Amino acid sequence: MASIDLNSDVGESYGNWTFGDDAAIFESVSSANVACGFHAGDPSGIRATCEAAAAAGVVIGAHPAYRDLAGFGRRFMDVAPKELIDDVIYQIGALEALARSAGTEVRYVKPHGALYNTIVHHETQAKAVAKAVAEVAPGLPLLVLPNSEIQRAAEAAGLRTVTEAFADRAYTPEGTLVSRREPGSVLHDLDGIVEHVLRILDGKVQAIDGSIVRIAADSICVHGDTPGAVAMAARVRAAVAEAGVGIASFA
Amino acid sequence: MASIDLNSDVGESYGNWTFGDDAAIFESVSSANVACGFHAGDPSGIRATCEAAAAAGVVIGAHPAYRDLAGFGRRFMDVAPKELIDDVIYQIGALEALARSAGTEVRYVKPHGALYNTIVHHETQAKAVAKAVAEVAPGLPLLVLPNSEIQRAAEAAGLRTVTEAFADRAYTPEGTLVSRREPGSVLHDLDGIVEHVLRILDGKVQAIDGSIVRIAADSICVHGDTPGAVAMAARVRAAVAEAGVGIASFA
Amino acid sequence: MASIDLNSDVGESYGNWTFGDDAAIFESVSSANVACGFHAGDPSGIRATCEAAAAAGVVIGAHPAYRDLAGFGRRFMDVAPKELIDDVIYQIGALEALARSAGTEVRYVKPHGALYNTIVHHETQAKAVAKAVAEVAPGLPLLVLPNSEIQRAAEAAGLRTVTEAFADRAYTPEGTLVSRREPGSVLHDLDGIVEHVLRILDGKVQAIDGSIVRIAADSICVHGDTPGAVAMAARVRAAVAEAGVGIASFA
Amino acid sequence: MASIDLNSDVGESYGNWTFGDDAAIFESVSSANVACGFHAGDPSGIRATCEAAAAAGVVIGAHPAYRDLAGFGRRFMDVAPKELIDDVIYQIGALEALARSAGTEVRYVKPHGALYNTIVHHETQAKAVAKAVAEVAPGLPLLVLPNSEIQRAAEAAGLRTVTEAFADRAYTPEGTLVSRREPGSVLHDLDGIVEHVLRILDGKVQAIDGSIVRIAADSICVHGDTPGAVAMAARVRAAVAEAGVGIASFA
Repeated sequence: MASIDLNSDVGESYGNWTFGDDAAIFESVSSANVACGFHAGDPSGIRATCEAAAAAGVVIGAHPAYRDLAGFGRRFMDVAPKELIDDVIYQIGALEALARSAGTEVRYVKPHGALYNTIVHHETQAKAVAKAVAEVAPGLPLLVLPNSEIQRAAEAAGLRTVTEAFADRAYTPEGTLVSRREPGSVLHDLDGIVEHVLRILDGKVQAIDGSIVRIAADSICVHGDTPGAVAMAARVRAAVAEAGVGIASFA
Repeated sequence: MASIDLNSDVGESYGNWTFGDDAAIFESVSSANVACGFHAGDPSGIRATCEAAAAAGVVIGAHPAYRDLAGFGRRFMDVAPKELIDDVIYQIGALEALARSAGTEVRYVKPHGALYNTIVHHETQAKAVAKAVAEVAPGLPLLVLPNSEIQRAAEAAGLRTVTEAFADRAYTPEGTLVSRREPGSVLHDLDGIVEHVLRILDGKVQAIDGSIVRIAADSICVHGDTPGAVAMAARVRAAVAEAGVGIASFA
Repeated sequence: MASIDLNSDVGESYGNWTFGDDAAIFESVSSANVACGFHAGDPSGIRATCEAAAAAGVVIGAHPAYRDLAGFGRRFMDVAPKELIDDVIYQIGALEALARSAGTEVRYVKPHGALYNTIVHHETQAKAVAKAVAEVAPGLPLLVLPNSEIQRAAEAAGLRTVTEAFADRAYTPEGTLVSRREPGSVLHDLDGIVEHVLRILDGKVQAIDGSIVRIAADSICVHGDTPGAVAMAARVRAAVAEAGVGIASFA
Repeated sequence: MASIDLNSDVGESYGNWTFGDDAAIFESVSSANVACGFHAGDPSGIRATCEAAAAAGVVIGAHPAYRDLAGFGRRFMDVAPKELIDDVIYQIGALEALARSAGTEVRYVKPHGALYNTIVHHETQAKAVAKAVAEVAPGLPLLVLPNSEIQRAAEAAGLRTVTEAFADRAYTPEGTLVSRREPGSVLHDLDGIVEHVLRILDGKVQAIDGSIVRIAADSICVHGDTPGAVAMAARVRAAVAEAGVGIASFA
């Protein structure tokens, strides 16, 4: 592997409330998933995020979500496909305009939070998200979990998909994520995370039962919403570089 | 005058709530100001409006507003220019994406409600609105009240402006609108409205004191939010046609 | 049966958008489920509804919902119990204050839309709703579907429950509602509805397969959101009266 | 002066976003102005705030605001009095219910942000706020700036008023606050703030021109939204105690 992408969520402040340390995270990642206003992100904050990403040479992607500010887009909503399609288009368009005003452009799409988790297995919502992107921006790749409904739906809709792995999440022997409700689902030990990331670079993960599973990831997701997360992102970046693998956007 | 534009506000339903009779209004106007989600307009409703406008051969414009669903964008908000710029860009971008998905495109911008009224005289907010359009879509004309701060700001920002008159509003001797708080500010009599519109075609209005004032209008605004308003719009269209003046978008 | 309650949803306008014909429905029902602002109902509209209900001698109940204006509270949301408890308390308190200012008071609670449907079978959310009422207003009865999780949870929480049947809904042989996704789930024929209501007064319904099922209902729900619905409500009221059964609130 | 009240804004987090250090501020103040959901404060956060205030022996007051999450209630909105009355009642009622569930109760009202600033001079909105409190909770005092429209409106409405001074704000020779847009309007130097507070205890302030002005304050407002603000609040508390003046709620 010559290079891999590192991605993180950014632009998740809202009005007077701040969230995450975007400036720090831009030093570690090659791709930034920018909130679009439905779970987080007011227009001026979104635009400032786009400007900062552009200045840091970080590619931006749209990070659409359920319409749920109070829940930060982390609660499943049983949205009808017609509405979900148009909600996603609305968010992508809003971000495109702010990105354009900031001198940059949206280069991919990665759904947020509960929507991301839902379209791993929920065929109807997965197809709706894929259809939204196909209708409004068919040239944009979708960043997806491998072997998910959204990967299948996106490919069926003629979209390019880019797969990702998570730097700090445990995997099942089937190569899916261990639910956050299970013990051990989130990795906290930095050395363990580095080991995990190095395996991902090699196309593998060690599952929670100790078995080795093959997974193909074009991008690794890191977080930036706590001081610890920012340090972890920097550590992951360093480990990837030390392994002789470049860090570059897929877009 | 060979032709004039007729414009009206549309797409102002929201989720389960309906507002206005857009289908009827599309039979009368050449330009439709489409709500963008801040004062009205959910994404699926906006898109359906764009599709219906396209099917009816009606040009669509963005109708950005203050972020105020509860007040339908009709209450002045003291928004800082930086935030107002980005709020307007956000709304234009969201509409652009839905219009694109509906097979059409945004061709002009006309602010809504209290924002429209404010930028007639509020220099700071007027400059913010003009800057927003100049940054995100400098090729789009702004539909404005003649002799307003927004007209001056738009022209200073290098934007094309299109002036409008109101079919059912009384004018002052200075050529501005009589405040809605004044008696006689809104015309209700259909014959009086037709007479008023025919004068507008001739570049004039009769002010509330009886004097004749010159105004230049490229478009006439009609309403469609009540059965009476829809009938009025149809009557205005018929009167313009009978006067031998074509009805066509300026865009 | 000496008397039964008729209930309907009211106060579901929002700002500039109107919904339903509350004035007409107040002529038919004895109890009004008043929107609390999360799915519908702005404060001034809620208060006007309370004033009109009081003037018409109609008892009011709180009609709390998921926080989902865009979806009118009709979309399931996977809200954590802690949050759901406090969302319900917030809504009940807001309505209590407006009712007090209107010279009346909240006398019962009936959840709205997707929340109502969810707590028929979703034990966790049912317990959360029951806990909310028990914490903030333990003297208020909960209006529930018979044999539901919310009935069990409310009784376990020491609340009084009042059961209801639906004037225009088909029933399964088990005495539950036929899903709206099934053909024949909603009754439209007025004579059939009257026959259905008369059976409810007799403690029975005819299920969709023709069998007769016993159900106990202290209240009958009618709708008021269309001209047809208002006419149906009036017809149901007349039929109940003709059957010699009084119409009176349970509260 | 035997004792004075110290008040601060709390409960201004929202969902996933946190704001201020309420736990620290509860160690310094005797009264806490709790956000009610319109500018900040989700129901579970509000309730947790009420519980923490009760545990710390701090009296709570309602802190109603304009409906403006994106602007944190800091932007003037031209809300009609009828709507403002009901918006304030809604917020007070919602907080009352959450406070009750938390084992405490609302003991006073202090409007927030732009609403607070507006009703210092805006007679119509001031009367609306006073009317709201008089209608829904006539026994609650209003915390006000001395010599303001809201003080006059509240007294005319038969409400008790409690006056406050600001620990970190400069005053004009007329005894009003120097606008935040003016240089020197906000005090930052801790020693200067202590000196200012000690004068307030003596019924005076030194105006920005050096003159001494009499003001009567029953409460002193401190802030808690930054680490520096929390330290300042603690310092003010210590200075008041060292001056031999007790710190106790007025309610």
